[in-house]
Amino acid sequence: MANSMKKTAIILLSGGLDSTTVLAIAKAQGFALHALSFDYGQRHAIELEAAKRVAASMGVERHTIVPMDLRVFGGSSLTADIAVPKHDSVAEMDVGIPITYVPARNIIFLSYALACAEVAGAGDIFLGVNAIDYSGYPDCRPDFIAAFEQMANKGVAAAVEGNMPIKLHTPLITMSKAEIIKEGLRLGVDYGQTHSCYDPAPNGEACGQCDSCLLRAKGFEEAGTIDPVIKIKEA
Amino acid sequence: MANSMKKTAIILLSGGLDSTTVLAIAKAQGFALHALSFDYGQRHAIELEAAKRVAASMGVERHTIVPMDLRVFGGSSLTADIAVPKHDSVAEMDVGIPITYVPARNIIFLSYALACAEVAGAGDIFLGVNAIDYSGYPDCRPDFIAAFEQMANKGVAAAVEGNMPIKLHTPLITMSKAEIIKEGLRLGVDYGQTHSCYDPAPNGEACGQCDSCLLRAKGFEEAGTIDPVIKIKEA
Repeated sequence: MANSMKKTAIILLSGGLDSTTVLAIAKAQGFALHALSFDYGQRHAIELEAAKRVAASMGVERHTIVPMDLRVFGGSSLTADIAVPKHDSVAEMDVGIPITYVPARNIIFLSYALACAEVAGAGDIFLGVNAIDYSGYPDCRPDFIAAFEQMANKGVAAAVEGNMPIKLHTPLITMSKAEIIKEGLRLGVDYGQTHSCYDPAPNGEACGQCDSCLLRAKGFEEAGTIDPVIKIKEA
Repeated sequence: MANSMKKTAIILLSGGLDSTTVLAIAKAQGFALHALSFDYGQRHAIELEAAKRVAASMGVERHTIVPMDLRVFGGSSLTADIAVPKHDSVAEMDVGIPITYVPARNIIFLSYALACAEVAGAGDIFLGVNAIDYSGYPDCRPDFIAAFEQMANKGVAAAVEGNMPIKLHTPLITMSKAEIIKEGLRLGVDYGQTHSCYDPAPNGEACGQCDSCLLRAKGFEEAGTIDPVIKIKEA
């Protein structure tokens, strides 16, 4: 079947492990892929390079990169100049809403996805939110996702007119990191192309001690395989 | 009462007639004012100048201007290079969703307002949507506003934690343009500072024939007063 015959899906692609796995899942479901990434003045622009690598190698038909500047609001270590927390293990991580929370970030990203969906005529939106490993983020939870979908179907013209309902696909939402990795490997994902670290070295090397590195390492360990990217420092 | 004792509200301020009236209403209700405007590559940057004028003259304590680029998605005459429709009267305006609709624009603007609200610790958000004169925009309708508010209270950390519920205030939503103008005049709004035209001359002068100019002119006429800005061309 030619790609032009396929239904298109919008996939929020950060270039990390989760969103890359979601891209593979959308592809396996037969969608033509329109990836959407954000260049939001984050200090890990290395992540955006990973998104471009992943999009190029996984047959994405279109990759829209939206410039934005969340720093205008301040408030998170992913965009502002405050230290990313470091730990030696997942057990030491803080509970509650992490300091790396960017105010309303997923809401803003999803809103742009709606604009993208409307212009592309594609109501299927995939995103790699996960309520298990990272439940501190309220905008990763199923009831938020359901509420966003409801709002979108009342606010997006094409959805209101009835010819393009908005559907949010969150295939990872109840999966553990190990399950996500196993599913990605089954679908042929090359995790060596992805990037997860919140605080990489200038050469892009992962720190191995931020929350994101630790969750990723734990996931690979539990999946019984080796992470091609992160080498956790020995305690 | 010192301003520092007042509760702060976020007001979406375009510099147009409606949002300026909303600003006056929020002020009259006793809120300290934090205005939020968007510099979104629109060809009417003149509107942003109006927003700055209005904010400066109406005692706004903080005015955040968010740079954004909706052109990355294409799709509307307010951001792309296609002609703004012109008519001689409101009766000739197109029905349905106007060509000036920017995909998901109010959703994106409101999402930024949530980020702003969260950082400012201010859950009250005012916006000048109106379901009467401009019902072609789905994201101006009460059921959309209610759905957005529900979503926000599930996705914004401070709201989920229970200490800052998000409330969307839409005081104009069921008012006619004439009623809006009367209310603004009662509150002392100087409409000479506002800008509404979708297609102004380089010197900022309103065209008098776009949908926005015609609705505004009709509103002033019905309010029994003179618009200090728009001179409608004689038919």
